[in-house]
Amino acid sequence: MKFHIITLFQDACDAYLSASIIGRARKEKKISIIYQNPRDFVDNKWGKVDERPYGGGPGMVMSALPVVRAAQRALRIPRSPRRGIKPKPVVVWFSPSGKQFTNKDADALAKYSDVVLVCGRYEGVDERARKILKTFVPVKEFAVGEAVYTGGEVPALAIVDAVTRRLPGVLGKDASVEERRIASRAVYTRPESILYQAKRYKVPSVLLTGHHAKMDEWRAKRRSKAQSRTSPRGGKRK
Amino acid sequence: MKFHIITLFQDACDAYLSASIIGRARKEKKISIIYQNPRDFVDNKWGKVDERPYGGGPGMVMSALPVVRAAQRALRIPRSPRRGIKPKPVVVWFSPSGKQFTNKDADALAKYSDVVLVCGRYEGVDERARKILKTFVPVKEFAVGEAVYTGGEVPALAIVDAVTRRLPGVLGKDASVEERRIASRAVYTRPESILYQAKRYKVPSVLLTGHHAKMDEWRAKRRSKAQSRTSPRGGKRK
Repeated sequence: MKFHIITLFQDACDAYLSASIIGRARKEKKISIIYQNPRDFVDNKWGKVDERPYGGGPGMVMSALPVVRAAQRALRIPRSPRRGIKPKPVVVWFSPSGKQFTNKDADALAKYSDVVLVCGRYEGVDERARKILKTFVPVKEFAVGEAVYTGGEVPALAIVDAVTRRLPGVLGKDASVEERRIASRAVYTRPESILYQAKRYKVPSVLLTGHHAKMDEWRAKRRSKAQSRTSPRGGKRK
Repeated sequence: MKFHIITLFQDACDAYLSASIIGRARKEKKISIIYQNPRDFVDNKWGKVDERPYGGGPGMVMSALPVVRAAQRALRIPRSPRRGIKPKPVVVWFSPSGKQFTNKDADALAKYSDVVLVCGRYEGVDERARKILKTFVPVKEFAVGEAVYTGGEVPALAIVDAVTRRLPGVLGKDASVEERRIASRAVYTRPESILYQAKRYKVPSVLLTGHHAKMDEWRAKRRSKAQSRTSPRGGKRK
């Protein structure tokens, strides 16, 4: 599986994607990550990738063609023949009005051979880049979270991370890890008892019993309590 | 404003936080970012920060005390007296069942002098760390997006980014940038006409008129179209 990240800030992304679990998945060739910089595909000699928006407004907009060309270059990378995978590319486009990216979307993305993540900067990317890309590759629009970021790099890292950890063999156990994780939102480890400023903090005794039915019941109870405590949803979309 | 990031993976975070707009905000002292590594606060001589979870299950859980001590060290950093800000700290704890982080939450966080972001890894952090932290500092629980990540680093980057870009003077214009951004989801810049594979892609003519009322109307129309196209919400929380 190949992730192609279209970004002006390769180094900013690559440090995160070289560490820990994702870095190991790359070393073990479970995924590969290739960068394309729109700046390498401009027509002007100054490497200028942005212009003022039509219709006015603050900030700068990324030009369409350097982004389109970067995505084209990404998708032209020859498939490794020994794996015999027919190329099946998809472009991910970030937009505050896109669908919230979920674990289900992560599983759906994992079915593609090449995922091209377009990281806009400034005030966004000229809309025609999306229109042109759609003429030769499916384009999915996603949002990651409900806040606005300075660019598409944070959502891109989130998606590469969320997809990669779900690939077979990347986490220690293939068993549906995050179901368990969410189910047992409160986790405990050694030591059994912590003394902190004259107060004792203990592991809930049910977790020491080894009685699986009782532990599951306790976790389910905690979970419903936690859910009623948090508000149903964050901010509204405007 | 100080962000304290409690993480095992400082380098993975710092490259992103040194680039572009956030990097510039740091250089201009609009924010500062300080890291604490829980590994520096363990009792054992092997730097071991995780243990198997009580009650069984796959994966490892981060121990409570190294995280608590790292947060304490973060909060003991002396305030710079020339700014005369009374310390007002808050801890951010990531949890899939936490509230979705929004721009409103970003504005609320910007009112604190010290924001401590606790990045769990593996299967999470021993629940008692949160309980102990709550005895001396307010703790807010957030989720960023609806997928599960390998650790709290991606959500932490998202929060630092979203808060920083909203601070006065960080973006070119202080005017409520993201309202505009979301309102004009489709942006266009030069050239006015793009020829791509014998097809012509033009900037919508209304944006060339300079007629502000008409442009606003067009943007509002596009916006409602885009919203009806996307599904009301992403995945459900389980």
